[in-house]
Amino acid sequence: MTERKDAFPCRMQDLPPAGARLCMAVGRFLKEKCGVSPHHVIVAFSGGADSTALAVILRCLGVSLVLAHLDHRLRPESGEEAESARRFAERLGVPCMVRRVDVEALARSEGIGLEDAGRRARYAFFDSALLSERAEWVVTGHHLDDLSEDVLMRLVRGSGWPGLGGMKAVDPARRLLRPLLGTPRAELEAFLRSLGVDWIEDASNRSDAFRRNRMRNHVIPLLKAENPSFSRSTRTLWELAREDEHYWNEVLAPVFAQLREENGSLLLPRAAFVSLPRAARLRVYAGLFHRFGRGQAQSETLFRLDGAAVSSRSRKVFQFPGGVCITTDGDGVLMKTGGGGKNPF
Amino acid sequence: MTERKDAFPCRMQDLPPAGARLCMAVGRFLKEKCGVSPHHVIVAFSGGADSTALAVILRCLGVSLVLAHLDHRLRPESGEEAESARRFAERLGVPCMVRRVDVEALARSEGIGLEDAGRRARYAFFDSALLSERAEWVVTGHHLDDLSEDVLMRLVRGSGWPGLGGMKAVDPARRLLRPLLGTPRAELEAFLRSLGVDWIEDASNRSDAFRRNRMRNHVIPLLKAENPSFSRSTRTLWELAREDEHYWNEVLAPVFAQLREENGSLLLPRAAFVSLPRAARLRVYAGLFHRFGRGQAQSETLFRLDGAAVSSRSRKVFQFPGGVCITTDGDGVLMKTGGGGKNPF
Repeated sequence: MTERKDAFPCRMQDLPPAGARLCMAVGRFLKEKCGVSPHHVIVAFSGGADSTALAVILRCLGVSLVLAHLDHRLRPESGEEAESARRFAERLGVPCMVRRVDVEALARSEGIGLEDAGRRARYAFFDSALLSERAEWVVTGHHLDDLSEDVLMRLVRGSGWPGLGGMKAVDPARRLLRPLLGTPRAELEAFLRSLGVDWIEDASNRSDAFRRNRMRNHVIPLLKAENPSFSRSTRTLWELAREDEHYWNEVLAPVFAQLREENGSLLLPRAAFVSLPRAARLRVYAGLFHRFGRGQAQSETLFRLDGAAVSSRSRKVFQFPGGVCITTDGDGVLMKTGGGGKNPF
Repeated sequence: MTERKDAFPCRMQDLPPAGARLCMAVGRFLKEKCGVSPHHVIVAFSGGADSTALAVILRCLGVSLVLAHLDHRLRPESGEEAESARRFAERLGVPCMVRRVDVEALARSEGIGLEDAGRRARYAFFDSALLSERAEWVVTGHHLDDLSEDVLMRLVRGSGWPGLGGMKAVDPARRLLRPLLGTPRAELEAFLRSLGVDWIEDASNRSDAFRRNRMRNHVIPLLKAENPSFSRSTRTLWELAREDEHYWNEVLAPVFAQLREENGSLLLPRAAFVSLPRAARLRVYAGLFHRFGRGQAQSETLFRLDGAAVSSRSRKVFQFPGGVCITTDGDGVLMKTGGGGKNPF
């Protein structure tokens, strides 16, 4: 944080022209790409350039905000960072909530990775902040460079389409908003520098212990060497994905309207999907997992599932990671929990 | 080439079990993914592992084939390679055509890159071989590792969907067939080794002068380190893309049926597309370029074109690379050639 004790700009007219243009671009992104006009939000605040810029931009756009900072207790300086989050909030003239969680202990007790434990702790904190502050959205600083990394990671792990286009800018189910997803990180840093606002560089971003960092540090530079506007390409890909997502949601809405829920299991009658084109049917099965809220399927398995669901009327049972079991027969597709269920035949 | 003078296997029953399985998999791929049963084909034969394996596999599948080898005259040993192509063909019991082209001179005279000139010379040769041999298809040795590289290159240059899924296995317009697109290169090499068939390693594959090689040598290894079955992921992505391509072809066929051709220009009446979802409209504009046979558009420009085509009834003119000009007005979308055309308003 800068040591100047004066307040940070909190009105558009206080900004230099480039900063005002950036704010307006983020405002347009919120309106046109997210379709929302947020009034009162929780800012997921790490103190890095992204969430720092996010807080200033939203403030200048007239959004009421509360900073929420999780002290992960992973680094010796984390207590100091919480303190500087408080000072930043004060100078921006907004409230700040800080929660301390021993993420290392959480990871041990839950038997999960550090990155995963951190994410869980953060989102649990943000969800409780949403409630206690009666806010509309949790707003994160994910930007265009994060999006490029996300697209690559999805490519690597074998996402289908439109998932391959990257994370959403608005996720109503999780009350999550990512207003900077179309903005390159370099623009956010230039914005902060132009205002004399400092930020904290997270040294762990340079560590190759996490896949995301390996993508950022080693793969993305090679792709940018091939095409300097690679980030812009991923933004366009993302926009195309959002169009297709919208399209498929509309096309499949009448199909999912026929979904029946009984005793925690889902049944989609055969007539609801069997005459659809295969491209649509594959998305129906993927949508079942989404609606079921657990389990996941690789596209390869969905191809096999489709073969069983459409061509044969004999009963077939498929087991999926996450303890989800799908049975196909003449009635349709039945999805339920159940680990070791055997094909009865 | 191996120095044994005995003939290569040309029947399935002559193959070791793994080789027979590979042949059958390629046969299934041809039937299920390409939808063709070729009888008489031109094999684009370089002498590398891919086209060498392709020739043996097709021969064992009972396809009648003619090898076509272009001597690029780029390397001192190219004349020798043409000679060894002839010997290989003889031992496989199939005819071989060889053409010599000074690709370097072609590149100079046309003002294009070496890679591009080589491709042009090859396909001109293959097209003439198709005619002279009355063959049905030009068959190339592109395999799954080529497909992974292709997907990455498309990601880098900003392809949309389903284009991002990679090259087609069957391209009826160019009479092109790629039966090995689902097979990893390692399987092809193992197949040849099991038969004692040698191949030529093209030293230029290791050169970083070409983007494709940079992808193969530097980017792909990093992605495979993250996910050892990355190639399989791209094959699945490719399958999903083929499903969607088929889907959109069906959905848009009635739209393109309303396309009018007049004096070399294309007119799509406004009523044919204006009420379609945006995801469909964007593919209509992309399809216009495909049908027009020249020019190209980035997705970003298609977004702007769509804005003009749908929302406004005032005349707007767009210029595209390749000397293509699109005019939108109340009548619809008019596509024609014309370099320096100005917006009349």
